[in-house]
This record gives sequence, C-alpha cells and structure tokens, in this order.
Amino acid sequence: MTTDDGWGLDNLPYGVFDSGDGRRLGVALGDEVIDVGALAAAHGSALVDVLDVPSLDPLLAGSPALWHRVREALTGWLGSPGWRTARSPRPLRHRRDAVTMHLPFTVGDYVDFYASEHHAANVGRILRPGSPPLAPNWKHLPVAYHGRAGSVVVSGTPVRRPNGQRRSDDGPPTFGPTERLDIEAEVGFVVGGHSGLGEPIPVGEAADHLFGVVLVNDWSARDVQAWEYVPLGPFLGKSFATSISAWVVPWAALEHARVAPPPRDVPLLPHLVDPGDAALDLALEVRLNGHVISRPPFRTTYWTAAQQLAHLTSNGAPTRPGDLVASGTVSGPGRDEYGSLLELSWGGREPLTLPDGSRRSFLADGDEVTITARAPGPGGRTIALGPVTGVVTPAG
Amino acid sequence: MTTDDGWGLDNLPYGVFDSGDGRRLGVALGDEVIDVGALAAAHGSALVDVLDVPSLDPLLAGSPALWHRVREALTGWLGSPGWRTARSPRPLRHRRDAVTMHLPFTVGDYVDFYASEHHAANVGRILRPGSPPLAPNWKHLPVAYHGRAGSVVVSGTPVRRPNGQRRSDDGPPTFGPTERLDIEAEVGFVVGGHSGLGEPIPVGEAADHLFGVVLVNDWSARDVQAWEYVPLGPFLGKSFATSISAWVVPWAALEHARVAPPPRDVPLLPHLVDPGDAALDLALEVRLNGHVISRPPFRTTYWTAAQQLAHLTSNGAPTRPGDLVASGTVSGPGRDEYGSLLELSWGGREPLTLPDGSRRSFLADGDEVTITARAPGPGGRTIALGPVTGVVTPAG
Repeated sequence: MTTDDGWGLDNLPYGVFDSGDGRRLGVALGDEVIDVGALAAAHGSALVDVLDVPSLDPLLAGSPALWHRVREALTGWLGSPGWRTARSPRPLRHRRDAVTMHLPFTVGDYVDFYASEHHAANVGRILRPGSPPLAPNWKHLPVAYHGRAGSVVVSGTPVRRPNGQRRSDDGPPTFGPTERLDIEAEVGFVVGGHSGLGEPIPVGEAADHLFGVVLVNDWSARDVQAWEYVPLGPFLGKSFATSISAWVVPWAALEHARVAPPPRDVPLLPHLVDPGDAALDLALEVRLNGHVISRPPFRTTYWTAAQQLAHLTSNGAPTRPGDLVASGTVSGPGRDEYGSLLELSWGGREPLTLPDGSRRSFLADGDEVTITARAPGPGGRTIALGPVTGVVTPAG
Repeated sequence: MTTDDGWGLDNLPYGVFDSGDGRRLGVALGDEVIDVGALAAAHGSALVDVLDVPSLDPLLAGSPALWHRVREALTGWLGSPGWRTARSPRPLRHRRDAVTMHLPFTVGDYVDFYASEHHAANVGRILRPGSPPLAPNWKHLPVAYHGRAGSVVVSGTPVRRPNGQRRSDDGPPTFGPTERLDIEAEVGFVVGGHSGLGEPIPVGEAADHLFGVVLVNDWSARDVQAWEYVPLGPFLGKSFATSISAWVVPWAALEHARVAPPPRDVPLLPHLVDPGDAALDLALEVRLNGHVISRPPFRTTYWTAAQQLAHLTSNGAPTRPGDLVASGTVSGPGRDEYGSLLELSWGGREPLTLPDGSRRSFLADGDEVTITARAPGPGGRTIALGPVTGVVTPAG
C-alpha cells in the first residue's frame, strides 16, 4: 500500500489503536498508524491536550476552529522531511496491520436515516407491493429513527446471528435465529461540538457540526423487523449490532468530493433547502467473502447530511459530541448498486450466485462482509474510507 | 413535609444536587437532601469512592451487591440517633427546596416501550378507527422503540413548544409550532451494570439489572408524529424533550410494591414468561396547572420491566449503566386513568374543562404538568416517587 492509494496526507483519518500498551489516538498514513499524541509531544505542542488521549472524544467536544488547527498541525508535521526521526516520548509509527483498533469515540445518539430514494422505493416495492413505493411524507422530510448507540461496534467485531421473534404462517410466532440476516451499506456522519436544547441547526450551518465520516454496516434481521415494526418502527431487528469503520475521515478531507445532490422533484420547506454542494461523491464497494456484490454510489442519495442535521434539530433536539448520523442504506439505480441483500436478492426471490457457486439470499454463518469507499481528493488523488468489516458467527 | 409522607428511611431516593458549590450526590430524607459523600466521609467509609462524586454514574456501574451495601450503609447511618451532629468535611444536610437538582446520571440508551394495553388500545381506537385496536404483534412481544437520550432533561427544565412539519388538509405540509403538544405519563427503569454484546438477560434475572425507578414525562407533538411515523416510527414528535424526576427511587425500596401483572390472555414464548410478582403497584397522579387530571395505575400495565429487559436483550443487544427503559404511557381502564391528553380528550374531540373554566385538548403555552406517584412501603408506610414537572414555553 502506498500513500497514493487514498491513505496519503490528503486524508489522515483518525482512529484509536492499541499497539500493546493501551489505547492511543492516531491517524492513518500509508500502511502505518501515526501516534499523534507522541507526535504533538515531540513538537512541544499544546495540542497534546486533545491528541495525547485514548479517544477522539476531547477533539469532538471542541470547535471547528480547533479541528482545523489540529489538521493543519498534523499536515505540517507529517509533511516535513525528517519527521520520522523526531525525538518523541514513544514510537511515532506502527504498522497498521499490527495494531488493534477500537471504537474511536463514545457514541452519543445514533440516528439512522432512510435517505436513499432508490433504497426506499425498492423496499416499498418488495415489502408493500401494490402500494406506492414511497410513503407520502418521503419527499417532504428525511425519514429517520433512533438506533441503539450501545450496539455500535468497531469494524472487525464478529457479529453473532441474533435470535428473535418471527411471524409464522400457520400459528403463533416463533423465537429463534434469524433466517434473513442482512447488511445495510451506509455512510455515517460523526457530529462534533454541541447544539443546545431548543436551538435548531440551520441547514446552511450544518457543516460546522460535522467532524467526519465513517462507513457503517447496519446489520438487520429482516424477519424480526417485519414482525415487530408496526407501529413504532424497527427495534430488535436492528439493535443487535451496527458496525462502523475504525477510521474517521475528516469532513475537511472530503472538500473535493462535494457535489450537487440529485434534483428535488418536490418543493422543500425553507428550513430544508440546502446549499448546492452538500452531497458527497463517495463510491462504495460491498464485498461478500471477498467478492464485490455491489457498488452503491452515495452521490445519488436524495437527502444530504446538511438536511439530515437540520431536520434532526428542527424541533429543538440538542446534539452532543459523538452523535452518529447515518444515511440509511445507500442504493443506486442499477441492480448492481443496491446496498442490502434484501434488494440484491429482491426479497429473497432472486438469490445471488457467488463465484464459488454458492447462492445467497441472506447471510450464512461464516460470511464476511466488507464495505469500503473512495472519494475524489485534491490533484486527482483519492481519499479512502473504511473498511468496515465483520464476520457472521452462529446464533447463541 | 414529614418522613411519613413517603420520603422516609424506607425510600432514600438518589439525586444530584447543587447547594452552591458544585454537583454532589445526595439522598432525599423528609424535606432535606443529605450529602451522602460527606456522610460517608464522616464515617471514614470506603464508599466515598461511589458516593463522594457528582453523579450516580459510578454507583450505576457497580453490581447489585454494591447497591445493597450502599443502601445498608445509608440506612444504618441515617437511622442512628445523633447522625445529624456527626463531624463531616462539609454540611450533611440541605433543605430540598433550596438546592438545584441536576440530571442524576448519564443516560446511555433510552428505550420507550408501549407496555400499557389500555393505552395502546385507546390510541388504536382514536387514530385507526375501524382497525383492530391492537396490532397483531402486541400481545406477543412488548413493542418499543429507541428515543433520544440526549434530550432527556431533569424535572423542572422548561419545555419549549417544538416546531415541526405537519400534514395539511389541502396542500403540501407546513412547518410551525405543534398544535397538539401532549404529555405521556410513564415509569422509567434505570439500568445498572453491564450486560455484554451477545448475552441476553434472562427474564428471571432482570431485577439484578434494575437499579431504580424514575417518573417520566415523554412530551409528544402528536401532529408532527402523525405525519412522520410511517414507516420507521416516532422521531421528531418525541425527541425534543423527555423529562425525568430528579430522584431515583432504588429498586430495593419498592419490594413491598411488587404485585402480579395482569392476566396474560395470549401464551408467551418461554423467554418472556416472567416471575409472578414482576409488576409494580405505583399509583400515578398527573396534575395540569395544579389540578389532578388523571390517576394512572401502573399495576395495570401488561408488560413488566423484567419482560421489557429480557425482550430488549433477546437479540444480544448489550446494556450499559444508565440505560433508561421507560414503560410508555401508563393508562388504566377508567376515563380518569389515562396517561395522555390524546386519550383524555379522545383525540381532541372531547376537551377537558379545568376548574378555572378553561378547556384543553392539548397543552397551552404556560401550562405546567406535574407527575407524582406513591407505592406501598413496609409497615403500612408509603414510598413517594417523582415529581417530574415542566412548564411549556412558547415556540422559538
């Protein structure tokens, strides 16, 4: 891996690593992780207060001005010739494949949107045939629900197949391992700073509250969800695990990925009219046991992060550092661009055939799912996001 | 107020108070709050580690054995003659009406159930006339959704009328102050300790994870909720504020309130069959501007806290100290036992008339809502819960 692979100075995603003596904050650079606390100490910088720590939490609690100052400093230090030989209290560099990664921040509230029109319409067609694919509210507001923050786990954490209650065709419901274990390939926005109770975030100021971006796999048990979700929405069908990438790509690193969102065909209420470049051109890739099964294009997502944050706070709900705002499943218009197996197998009626000849409508025990993404960076270079990966283990 | 009013040694609810020099943990006793950190220090107790702190968090992170030890110690110290003159590093006693109360613990995940059959059936009849009052899943599992933990506020916090998007009869949706601001009188269970990812809590062991009980007012904007909730459930109609009482009544104080839940008329799956005495006999009282408008009996709630916790973790979802598990609106069978204005005014069609002659279908700006409860204690005495109170301020 070289720094041209999306892991160069343009990116510098944050993560929490352990090389054997406890958790430390780092940034990824090439195939290494740089101990930013040691780096700041080597430069005698006061930024040790937010960098020589075991978590992103202190930095997330700060302001956009602080985030900018830290990024400037890191870029400067790591862009100087000879930085590798700076005197530091402990090693500056570790091989990325030799460290253990941890959840990078304390998750505040976790909100999951339903922002992709292609996904929402596919789900409508599959689960509610004969009805309009989108509910009447869908183009007027970004539909969302709260997920379980305590179930958010870092990439690499095994995901146990959940037990749950399912409808049965000819009798009372049954309880047992889900038979429709699915993925949801999503993009997650990590919120920094605070917005107060009763203080909505204007859509034009949303970016000031976005610290960075992770990839998300919001594992789902479709049979459990189908039985439980009326009338209060998904609960146990989702809350058993949500995986996020270990690396948080700074919002500032995605400046060159800003694009116009898809055209809006229904007029928006004023508080949801976002700036013209609030969408992100992230090209996702979903692998099942190493084989690419989908390439969801995030730029086709109808509702932007700015709209999501403006909507989320429009009733005065406060935000906290570490709030996780996920897009919901990202699906493009093409059959090979869907972000869930529910869609890829069209409700289980058209199983996928993998290169090894095996077929999948939903996940089998032992399956490994990995989501990555790439975004345009400066100078024709790219920014890598992810991976978020997990292996399915048998039900307990 | 005397110690016979439910605030005696049998109760000793925990809260976080500030008498002018910072937050401290205390217990209520009569019309006083006792500084339990100072009390433990006066006795040279090692329990200062969890008592001489500004929050319930350290105690919540402990085990039921620790909770028991602390309660035994407090009961012993405060039951000894002469305790008021013990030498302590700072005053032991403060008038309860002279201190500021704060949120007593850091809320992990906030789950709101829908556990009252009378409430769920009333809502079905009001909002979905012509359909069966209860959804097909309702008696097979305790329906629930995740609420916003970051919007949980302590009793006394003013609640600003939220803006939101509402359906309009003859055109596109509009955005503005909710016209159907409601209350939900609920009982909240405060979870202590950890249960691990992938480790369900058996229904018979749920009580080991219950630290205490608060009263909850889950303020709701019914018009916002009605427009947004299909298909993923309530979101902004609820997330603007959830008030909890400042005092956390220990689970152990409610031993004499344990009763049998209502008869179950649909057989339960084995993991939801709870012990015979898992319900609680709490008599709630809801006041609007000082007038009692309802007396919801919590003992009529169909699903118990034990079942809620077993269901919540049945898919392997972990719990964290400070998770808040609320019952959903508590409504009894009688018209004067409903826990929401939606029911009390039957969807706004039958407004309440208050003693001052004013009428209410939903809340007006300036309205004050207060919920209290009483439970049987030992020796014919009672245990007081609450209050949880809040005044509605105009939309911003």
